[in-house]
Amino acid sequence: MNLQKINEFAINTILQAGRQIRESFSKELIIETKANANDLVTNIDRKIEQYFVEKIKELDPSHKILGEEGMGDRIATLDGPLWIIDPIDGTMNFIKQGRHFMITVGFFVDGVGKLGYLYDVMRDELISAIQGEGAFLNRQPLKKLNPLTIEKAIIGINSSWVIPNGKINHEKLVKLIKTVRGTRSYGSAAMEIALVVTGKLDAYLSMRLAPWDIAGGLVIANEVGAVATNLKGQPFNLLSQDTFLIANPSIHQVLLDQYIELIEEKQHSK
Amino acid sequence: MNLQKINEFAINTILQAGRQIRESFSKELIIETKANANDLVTNIDRKIEQYFVEKIKELDPSHKILGEEGMGDRIATLDGPLWIIDPIDGTMNFIKQGRHFMITVGFFVDGVGKLGYLYDVMRDELISAIQGEGAFLNRQPLKKLNPLTIEKAIIGINSSWVIPNGKINHEKLVKLIKTVRGTRSYGSAAMEIALVVTGKLDAYLSMRLAPWDIAGGLVIANEVGAVATNLKGQPFNLLSQDTFLIANPSIHQVLLDQYIELIEEKQHSK
Repeated sequence: MNLQKINEFAINTILQAGRQIRESFSKELIIETKANANDLVTNIDRKIEQYFVEKIKELDPSHKILGEEGMGDRIATLDGPLWIIDPIDGTMNFIKQGRHFMITVGFFVDGVGKLGYLYDVMRDELISAIQGEGAFLNRQPLKKLNPLTIEKAIIGINSSWVIPNGKINHEKLVKLIKTVRGTRSYGSAAMEIALVVTGKLDAYLSMRLAPWDIAGGLVIANEVGAVATNLKGQPFNLLSQDTFLIANPSIHQVLLDQYIELIEEKQHSK
Repeated sequence: MNLQKINEFAINTILQAGRQIRESFSKELIIETKANANDLVTNIDRKIEQYFVEKIKELDPSHKILGEEGMGDRIATLDGPLWIIDPIDGTMNFIKQGRHFMITVGFFVDGVGKLGYLYDVMRDELISAIQGEGAFLNRQPLKKLNPLTIEKAIIGINSSWVIPNGKINHEKLVKLIKTVRGTRSYGSAAMEIALVVTGKLDAYLSMRLAPWDIAGGLVIANEVGAVATNLKGQPFNLLSQDTFLIANPSIHQVLLDQYIELIEEKQHSK
């Protein structure tokens, strides 16, 4: 398998998809059917995923595809070559802001991440990675993340997890928020992952993400030294939804040990 | 006073300041003295404010200037023509992200907002307004905000206010977060105000802002129909720090009435 060739294919396909989204989007801005914004995004989402499916099947019909919109294959195993695709991550941002949404794509072989992409469509900013060969921002090498202490960290976390909720011990997250330098929340997992792998955020966590939200990011994370797991510290389950934490390597374990306590887990351990 | 002429002056000065920041910034990215990032930002902040001060004094030496870095005048009254300037709003974002920071400028005469500017330096996106003549995004007219319900709103709020704190009743904000469609937090008041006046967020609140954070935004808010007050529903005090709420007009009062309760106020009313 020629990963370099597949990488070029993926980059071209993603950039072309981005152009399509920007065009649909600016056209829509002109006609301004805000009432139908939800239909619009569904249509664009599906159109872009269909575009990926067609291109990938042209490249190699044996490749399987797992996409948010379900235009690809039914996936019960990670065996063989598998593309995991989110054509628009940050749907609400897409509708309401016309920015802060991403295309993200991961290419896995037998469950091992080979290629990863995080594309900020409106900024035209593509982060890409090839397993073992580094990560790139618009084809310029990205550096490994610099270590830092938890007190200096800026964390991506949504307020929903900081208030009482049935999934995670919010008291510990309150302590986290009082400890770190600051928090941010952008409404797109792929965008927050992109900020972490470029050192613009130091961690991001969420209680429920799908494989297509994070697959591309996992490959990139490895290349810059970011650590990505579920909130139990285990590998993210790419065949279902899971919790998620990506962080600068110097604070990943600190976050798990001192600030994250899943409520389910607590009940199981009693 | 020729407001059109002063508006052209302000736009040119802001765009030129933005170019200076992008240049300092990309130069710095190359030499990468991350250890001195704080000094760097202070230097750029001061340099840009000094640039505004020189340009304004050239335009009209009688104009007063209130700036975050204190390079302007000591201001004890809002009488006469007054520029209120933040050369870099979102300092932490500037240092760590190289994006998500703004230049923001307001021009007031006898305490009345005449001109306002919110400039996203890295996106090169300028929102401007002239009192009574509308607001503009890169010189294209901005529309009045569309009404919506609180359940459909996306709110800019930092997690710090959602956890127990001495300033605002966080229980009511917890209720707010459970009610609205979503929350965001970007780490720059001017950026969040820019998102509200363009309908990309529906409200933004903070417990402590300075006049230079919001002065430009106040003028723009008026032109698009956004309502901006302190958290008691009164005009923001431009001579000191104050609490702040800017919101779509259809939810501003709902927010004040049902979700915001200052702790000081509570004690006073007992």
